[in-house]
Amino acid sequence: MNTQLTKLKNNVIEELKKIAGSANILTEYEDRYCYAYDATAIGEELYLPDVVILPENKYQISEILKIANENSIPIITRGAGTNLVGGCVPLKGGIILHTSKMNKIINIDKNNLQCTAEPGVIVEKLQQEAEKQGLFYPPDPASLKVSTVGGSIAQSSGGPRGFKYGTTKDYVLALEAVLADGTIIKTGGKTIKNVTGYNLNQLITGSEGTLAIITEATLRLIPDPEERQVLLACFDSIDQAVKAVTGIISAKITPSTLDIMDKNTMQTIEKFHKTGLPTDMDAVLVLEVDGFKESVGVQAEQVAGICREFGAENIRTSRNRQEADEIWFARRSAFGAVARLSPNVLTEDAVVPRNKIPDMVRNIRRIADKYNLTVCIMGHIGDGNIHPNFSLDLRNKDEAKRFEKAVEELFDAALSLGGTLSGEHGIGFSKSAFMHKALDKKNLELMKSIKNVFDPKGILNPDKVFERR
Amino acid sequence: MNTQLTKLKNNVIEELKKIAGSANILTEYEDRYCYAYDATAIGEELYLPDVVILPENKYQISEILKIANENSIPIITRGAGTNLVGGCVPLKGGIILHTSKMNKIINIDKNNLQCTAEPGVIVEKLQQEAEKQGLFYPPDPASLKVSTVGGSIAQSSGGPRGFKYGTTKDYVLALEAVLADGTIIKTGGKTIKNVTGYNLNQLITGSEGTLAIITEATLRLIPDPEERQVLLACFDSIDQAVKAVTGIISAKITPSTLDIMDKNTMQTIEKFHKTGLPTDMDAVLVLEVDGFKESVGVQAEQVAGICREFGAENIRTSRNRQEADEIWFARRSAFGAVARLSPNVLTEDAVVPRNKIPDMVRNIRRIADKYNLTVCIMGHIGDGNIHPNFSLDLRNKDEAKRFEKAVEELFDAALSLGGTLSGEHGIGFSKSAFMHKALDKKNLELMKSIKNVFDPKGILNPDKVFERR
Repeated sequence: MNTQLTKLKNNVIEELKKIAGSANILTEYEDRYCYAYDATAIGEELYLPDVVILPENKYQISEILKIANENSIPIITRGAGTNLVGGCVPLKGGIILHTSKMNKIINIDKNNLQCTAEPGVIVEKLQQEAEKQGLFYPPDPASLKVSTVGGSIAQSSGGPRGFKYGTTKDYVLALEAVLADGTIIKTGGKTIKNVTGYNLNQLITGSEGTLAIITEATLRLIPDPEERQVLLACFDSIDQAVKAVTGIISAKITPSTLDIMDKNTMQTIEKFHKTGLPTDMDAVLVLEVDGFKESVGVQAEQVAGICREFGAENIRTSRNRQEADEIWFARRSAFGAVARLSPNVLTEDAVVPRNKIPDMVRNIRRIADKYNLTVCIMGHIGDGNIHPNFSLDLRNKDEAKRFEKAVEELFDAALSLGGTLSGEHGIGFSKSAFMHKALDKKNLELMKSIKNVFDPKGILNPDKVFERR
Repeated sequence: MNTQLTKLKNNVIEELKKIAGSANILTEYEDRYCYAYDATAIGEELYLPDVVILPENKYQISEILKIANENSIPIITRGAGTNLVGGCVPLKGGIILHTSKMNKIINIDKNNLQCTAEPGVIVEKLQQEAEKQGLFYPPDPASLKVSTVGGSIAQSSGGPRGFKYGTTKDYVLALEAVLADGTIIKTGGKTIKNVTGYNLNQLITGSEGTLAIITEATLRLIPDPEERQVLLACFDSIDQAVKAVTGIISAKITPSTLDIMDKNTMQTIEKFHKTGLPTDMDAVLVLEVDGFKESVGVQAEQVAGICREFGAENIRTSRNRQEADEIWFARRSAFGAVARLSPNVLTEDAVVPRNKIPDMVRNIRRIADKYNLTVCIMGHIGDGNIHPNFSLDLRNKDEAKRFEKAVEELFDAALSLGGTLSGEHGIGFSKSAFMHKALDKKNLELMKSIKNVFDPKGILNPDKVFERR
């Protein structure tokens, strides 16, 4: 089996080696096997790339694309591979372009509140470097310790801070990207305001590697808030938790985080690690307020008061960074804990208007019951983004089948509540079959025509976003 | 002269009357004459539309577009006509679609912090209605008392609050729009997070009516800040003012407004209306801080202190709303005052990285001197968006010619400083000839191909954004 050869012609491999250097080209079966997956549980099918390339700069990427385009070879760009919708899986083989060697922060421009980075920079690293200069890069996908700037732009990643600070798309000022034909383009600019032509910046952001390959990004930074305080508040019912959130927002407080975990999630976390979460309560809110020190304490007190008003118990408020980290540790353990329950955990990512969250949670629980699946619910309540985490064993064909049905019903529920398929994970190939449910026919046609403008031969991450043909 | 007939065939006019009702169709010369202009000084050429239609709903717009597309009739959508780059001027005649009858605020959803409005709603009206519910719609183009929601989305309008709050594009959650072929589409959704397919929302936003006609918009709102305080600080040199701004931002303060006016502007304002501006100083900053009442006073004091450190004199701080309004009155009078100097005022809209503002101002003054033009400089220093207002008489051919040359040099200067052609006014036809200076050839090609996807016959606001053919 490990002698399985790449389908690419030898002369193509040779040309690629000349461009990127032999050391940056992986063609061994074992190497390619490692790149047949991303963080998505996709069952037993194996999608092997023909070759993995670790380019060192945009010029190499441009040359690689010229060859790929000429020979109609699929190119799948990969950052850290934390994609949860199969976005980095090479469905049709081809080239995996791994950006890990393009990992320089080119500059942090304190004066103009922006930074420029290569696509392979780790998101957390960027945040840390910004913080050293008193600046703040808010997007915080759960994967931030490993995921990359390029990947997070390609996916327009979100995270807990979306409610106050928006998502990655809100920080992209300028991009440098390579088109399918190898042309290097620049979009946007180094200014906050810019209405010079169509917003190609935002078209490439979130396009999941299907329109262009990002080689450099200029991102907006903001001043780092003076102070942060984290609160944990437990509720008897999710409905009450949502009402408390509405109360907080009505009081004109905009927490930087408004996260929720349900009973199953808390029980699962506590099973593996005692963090002090109450396993008998229906839901817990994890809230963070930030800003000027004069106002943060006042806000935290108000938030606690409102939560109490709506029946919250055991309200914990951090008094220092360590206590804040402890509360966040519980929240951040959630996914890992669920992952230990069974061989696979599949995270869904529906999003609904915030006031529909109780309905959505009821739907999730009903559907999980109907299909006899274990689900832990967590998510970002502030922006209506709910993550039901299903723990199951995909080798169990019956369970896999039940899951498939459950997911389709989940999407229907989200759409019927005025929501949509994905808040922050994207479409990839896991959700592409449902796009027609979320979007008008004409809307999808426009998107496909745009794809065709950027990539007429369809070599960039084929069969992603749009349904497989 | 007033018997000049429309070029459209009678049967087309009859069909349009059937769709929109005779009362909503204007074909008289005098009526059409009123719609041959927008707020741009365009000299003596007259671009008459063939017909002006005031549609009442999206279905009428859809039917009108079908006829226009079939007969290749240009359609120019018009809100209040406050466009400053000739965007509403019917260069090739055709239909002016005036949205003034579609002026309903459909809802303000306090719970989900959003509102839905028809395109003809006045921006200020939306702000006022939001404020009644304790909410805030930040985009504040100077024209907000008359300009419309639809127009401000089509232009992605900015305003003084851009530095802290972003521009119109940052508030567009969902759009309903009609394509050239009459299809009604919906883009985006009613959730903050949404990565379901390409970001058509942001593609249509700022596309200046060249891709689709907006018939409904869902916009994000935020809680109205508890308190605001306005400061006025006068400086001996613009350089010092810019340094003070950098100092303020370094102190982690994010003012909601960071506006500047130069000596010429102050002198012009004071000539027509005594507002107490110091006519012997080089520049004045108009700053606003907002937020929780606990922090606003502290911030205002810090801002004043930093300005003083950089040599500011006569610092005025508002103690109540009335005093704040007085300071704003001076700033808001600027354009009107300049407009009284001579028959025409032409406002440019270059944008540069903030730390390049002193260079840009020096360039503006040098170029104005070189071409013997009167210029008053004002703008939004926080986001690098400078508005040189040239007052001149376009009937004076020589002066008009000198202005044309000056503008081209201005654009070159902005581009060489890392900026671009337009921060918030758009391209229209005034700047379309310079697009190739600001954008790569391939970038422009992509934009034209996208235009072609949306509007293959080129009927939507033809010869705007892209150079006239």
